[in-house]
Formats: sequence, structure tokens, C-alpha cells
Amino acid sequence: MTITFHGGDTGRWRVHAQHTVKGDALPPAARVAVADTDSDAPTHPAWSLRGIVSNLRYTGKDERERLAARQEGLGRRQAKAAALIPIRKDPRWWALAQDERRAIIEEQSRHISIGLEYLPAIARRLHHSRDLGEPFDFLTWFEFAPEDEPRFEHMLARLRASAEWRYVDREVDLRLRLDD
Amino acid sequence: MTITFHGGDTGRWRVHAQHTVKGDALPPAARVAVADTDSDAPTHPAWSLRGIVSNLRYTGKDERERLAARQEGLGRRQAKAAALIPIRKDPRWWALAQDERRAIIEEQSRHISIGLEYLPAIARRLHHSRDLGEPFDFLTWFEFAPEDEPRFEHMLARLRASAEWRYVDREVDLRLRLDD
Repeated sequence: MTITFHGGDTGRWRVHAQHTVKGDALPPAARVAVADTDSDAPTHPAWSLRGIVSNLRYTGKDERERLAARQEGLGRRQAKAAALIPIRKDPRWWALAQDERRAIIEEQSRHISIGLEYLPAIARRLHHSRDLGEPFDFLTWFEFAPEDEPRFEHMLARLRASAEWRYVDREVDLRLRLDD
Repeated sequence: MTITFHGGDTGRWRVHAQHTVKGDALPPAARVAVADTDSDAPTHPAWSLRGIVSNLRYTGKDERERLAARQEGLGRRQAKAAALIPIRKDPRWWALAQDERRAIIEEQSRHISIGLEYLPAIARRLHHSRDLGEPFDFLTWFEFAPEDEPRFEHMLARLRASAEWRYVDREVDLRLRLDD
């Protein structure tokens, strides 16, 4: 399933903060539309980022079962806050073998375990972009209740302090709200 | 890097055998063109299959080093024979966690180790297609000297007899030759 995030003047999600964490910025956007078909695309977006919901790349069977037992889907009624965090990793990352990347992600950085601690409050969907020739490698989408945003910040701070994040060379952080 | 294989009446590689191993056939083609840009595309191909040369998905560091020490590149002067083997795996495969797929590929099926035994004679490049919404999940391209085709057959027979191949639900086998 290919998802496109369109930033611009239209879309269901209102941008309430847009922050460049590392590398080049994205043009400013007032709203974000999340489209799963081309026909949903707005006419003149400021930017469009595509990604694919694909198979698991690092998650093991036990982790998958723990995640499945705790996680809830997107679109929950109380989840009126969201974040879109596009990330690119540097060429050193992509030259690593599978076991080296897995060791950095989980054994060193506890990426999967940290995400698990914040379930079910912080729902998450990962979109893979690198193989599409996109400017970012991943687009991570999070949904949560607005009162859980401090917990979300805490989770992000832990991930950004990890060994894995030393390979991130571009990152933008967009915070979004659904209007009542 | 995106590569497109075009089957039809034109292209550098002459098809000397086209065989459907499992599932639906591909329309017959007399020649195959390998294109790394859209401008190289023939006008009316019988079929076009796209794939991406991407990062390693299962190969570990030690395996990568053993492969790198033995493998040779594509385009060797003596490599006038090639094979294009498009494969699709069934939904059960893609629902497995990373460690389950890795265990089937290598610990049960010895896919990486078997490939290593045939290096440097059988050069290989894997193209990932599934995330592009293509009809196959992988396009594997092999190049070898025509006198090594029996060794190539032997390698394929071992892989097709493996636990991993029980997840393959579509496979086509094209054998190609460069004209002198």
C-alpha cells in the first residue's frame, strides 16, 4: 500500500508545528493530506512525500507478538494529534549488513522496545520511501490523544539520543491536529 | 537504482528458453533489454518488469564478507549466458517476522551459503519489486559462461528443493545468450 503525504493549504490535518531537526527543511505547510490513491491528491501541494507500508524489516517474532498484543490502529476517535517525521539515514547505514543494522536498532538502541513502552497510547505506522527514490528513507506517522503529546516527546527524545540516530542525516518533525 | 527488464523483439540478450516453473506464464519474448533509465525502453515490449537494487535484507556481516571476497561483477567478457528468474512469494511469507524469514532462508534453506559455493562462476544481482506494486516480488539476474550452465542448473535445483521455495507461488525462468 502506497501512501502519499501532501503538505500545502488543504488536508484534514492542521500543522501546528513544523521543525527541522537535521539537514534541509521542507517548505512550510499549513495542512497535511494523507492520500492512499492518486485521485486524493490536492492540486498544488507545497510538497508530496510517498512511502510504502511494507513487510517487517527488523522486528522478530516475539517482538511482533508483543506489539500485536498492545497496539491499536490508526483513526481512533481520541487520537486528534499526530506527528509526521520524515527521516533519511546516511550511506554508512545502508552499507551495513542486516545483522549489523538489527544490532544497532534493537540491541544497542532498543528502538522496538522503546516504542512498545508507549503502546497503545502512541499508535504508529511506518512508510518505506528509500526504494522509491524519495528524498527521505522513512516517513513515520504517529497518532495519539493531545494529552499524550508529552509522553510522545519523551519517547522521541530517547530515540534521538540512541546509537541508531547517529546515522540520521535529515529529519523533519511536523505536529498536526484534527480540528473539532 | 531501478532496473527494468523489457521482453520483446529487441534487446541485447537473445532468449533461448522461457519456462514457467509455477503460476502464470509471461508472454513469450524473443529478446530481453536491460534498461537502467526510462529512455532506454523499447517502444512496444511484450512485458516490462521493474526492480530496485537495494540494501541487503538478510545477509549478515560475515556472509557479506565471504561473498565480497569471492564474487565478480556483471558484464564479464566470458559471461555470454544469463538467466532472469522472476519470483513471487505467497502472503504467508510476507506475514512472517524478520527472524522467521531469515531462519527459513539461511538456517533451513542455506540460500546464501549455496549461492556462495557457485561464486565467482555464477554472478548474481537481486532486484526488489514487491514494494513497487509489480507482479513479481524479486527479479534475480545471473550471468555466467555458457559452459557453466550445468553448474547453474545444479544450484537452482538445490534452491528449488529448499524450505524457502515452498513459499514461492509464481516463478518464470528465462535463459539468455549474448550473440557473438
